[in-house]
Amino acid sequence: MIPRLFVAEHLQKGARFQADERAAHYLLNVLRRGSGDPLLLFNGSDGEYRGRIAEAQKRRLVLEAMDLVREQEAEPDLWLCFAPLKKDAVDFLVEKGTELGVSRFQPVLTAHTASNRINQSRLTAVATEAAEQSERLTTPEVLEPVSLEALRTGWSNDRHLLVCAETGDAKPIAEALNGLTSDVSSPHRFAVLVGPEGGFQDDELDRLRKLPFVTAVGLGPRILRAETAALAALSAFQAILGDGAKRPPRSAGAGS
Amino acid sequence: MIPRLFVAEHLQKGARFQADERAAHYLLNVLRRGSGDPLLLFNGSDGEYRGRIAEAQKRRLVLEAMDLVREQEAEPDLWLCFAPLKKDAVDFLVEKGTELGVSRFQPVLTAHTASNRINQSRLTAVATEAAEQSERLTTPEVLEPVSLEALRTGWSNDRHLLVCAETGDAKPIAEALNGLTSDVSSPHRFAVLVGPEGGFQDDELDRLRKLPFVTAVGLGPRILRAETAALAALSAFQAILGDGAKRPPRSAGAGS
Repeated sequence: MIPRLFVAEHLQKGARFQADERAAHYLLNVLRRGSGDPLLLFNGSDGEYRGRIAEAQKRRLVLEAMDLVREQEAEPDLWLCFAPLKKDAVDFLVEKGTELGVSRFQPVLTAHTASNRINQSRLTAVATEAAEQSERLTTPEVLEPVSLEALRTGWSNDRHLLVCAETGDAKPIAEALNGLTSDVSSPHRFAVLVGPEGGFQDDELDRLRKLPFVTAVGLGPRILRAETAALAALSAFQAILGDGAKRPPRSAGAGS
Repeated sequence: MIPRLFVAEHLQKGARFQADERAAHYLLNVLRRGSGDPLLLFNGSDGEYRGRIAEAQKRRLVLEAMDLVREQEAEPDLWLCFAPLKKDAVDFLVEKGTELGVSRFQPVLTAHTASNRINQSRLTAVATEAAEQSERLTTPEVLEPVSLEALRTGWSNDRHLLVCAETGDAKPIAEALNGLTSDVSSPHRFAVLVGPEGGFQDDELDRLRKLPFVTAVGLGPRILRAETAALAALSAFQAILGDGAKRPPRSAGAGS
């Protein structure tokens, strides 16, 4: 297994730089790699490079980028807006959401939201690790929480918002997504919003439904936990409107 | 919150029976309920009943079914076949799979499967609890592991198997599912198969692809963990071919 690392540095053939603490800990202590060992490196903008550990000393780990192996390419512009959840559930949501192509995690405080805090740096680390493992070329950003009110009033009209609604009127998600593809004037940027455990308040949902960029969507007859609803909506989105038809970069199979 | 419980007993108006240990622990110790407190009861075949705690003593907890509140109805016949995973991942898979409507969990041993054991009783408890919370009228079954060879040779031709394939030829999952709807001769029973961490061996995938009931499906360009792939495939299935257009039983909203 060749370790795949997100780095903050500019990448080009021959670029050398010191690894940050997270990378150093992972390579030296977790994987026990040393000088000369191969790496894959990406930074969200310069594509993916084959690289290596150029120097490994106790207090100095230098990495080197060698050859470009994947050009940078566009990745989905897909936001997930969610109410803060318990630690396990939110870690899970960010890990799986990253695998499913979320570009931005936006915590949202609603009437029934249990907590108004998230650990932004822990969630960013979870997202970065999931991006490394899922072979993304970007890492998602994890934002500070905002109120539902602020989210609504600050929203840009050209991003369509799919609101997962367990009560009241809602379109089946496949129907909603298929409808959006056939509408040539529709924006090409999307977001999914899921409520907290306990759901939205009825008036929160009513107000959301009236917004021109919102479609309230249903996810079937079962009551889903917030994190499950988010992943179900993201999965349906990627399958129907997103990049579900693309294949993994090294997917040729048999012997490749 | 009215506790919702799966019970093994026959349910009809006035039926009384002793709660099993799991239910007794949950009602008395976790929720601290007592005599007269309301319940919702289901058993997988008689619909859902409003009920109550008829007697609560230290060693004897008697439950009573009162009125039928939901008729039994058909739920998806959808299997999830998966290679055993680490404890957290497999618990998660069974919980989320239950929420997404899986009727049977079938562990499968493949060439790269790390472990050949699962804890069937723990996973059954996870599935039961998720069924209670997601307002299903049935609980899924969790089977003993079988080899991939045994799964293949014992398969019934009238159940279509969607094999999640990260390498080699695969149809985008939405295209595969839309193709199956339009084929009137297609069976109406389905299963999803995901490989272990590390994936299937190429020859395992090649052999699966040749089977008449198999469609190899792709889930987009990112490398997904086994449990994420399973949930993404199940979510796309329910949205496109499954019961994604149904609404939750108590979903009328505002004041209902």
